[in-house]
Amino acid sequence: MMEIIGLLAAILTSTAFAPQAIKAIRTQNTEGLSLGMYLIFTVGIACWLIYGIYLNDLPIILANSVTLMFSMTILILKIKHG
Amino acid sequence: MMEIIGLLAAILTSTAFAPQAIKAIRTQNTEGLSLGMYLIFTVGIACWLIYGIYLNDLPIILANSVTLMFSMTILILKIKHG
Repeated sequence: MMEIIGLLAAILTSTAFAPQAIKAIRTQNTEGLSLGMYLIFTVGIACWLIYGIYLNDLPIILANSVTLMFSMTILILKIKHG
Repeated sequence: MMEIIGLLAAILTSTAFAPQAIKAIRTQNTEGLSLGMYLIFTVGIACWLIYGIYLNDLPIILANSVTLMFSMTILILKIKHG
């Protein structure tokens, strides 16, 4: 049961970044996005991934692998377009 | 050592949402933000909090309590201003 809550959490917080990444790619408008947020966040997600591997916890590993991919896409677009 | 990586991850991913929340409050411009993202994300963070309480893992509980606060602030502003 609790494994399901963890996997649900993983799916929701990972896929949450998909619409933001798609929006940034489509509109090329990243003006409203905070560079500070995406810089700190991307480093943080990398730390979660390391921590998840240490805990050997599938939801944490899964969520942070996918989120890292989206977060880096948004970060690169923000650096490119300002 | 790994507890420190976890706490670092918690601090980084929580505080990452502070500049975005402050930016949204200050400029009242949430045009570039994705409503879909913040809706899905806020529900997901609530699930992580439940999962963290189940695992009795301090970094997960800490991170998701703080992130939930910021995420809900951004979500409310996005709903208000569009």
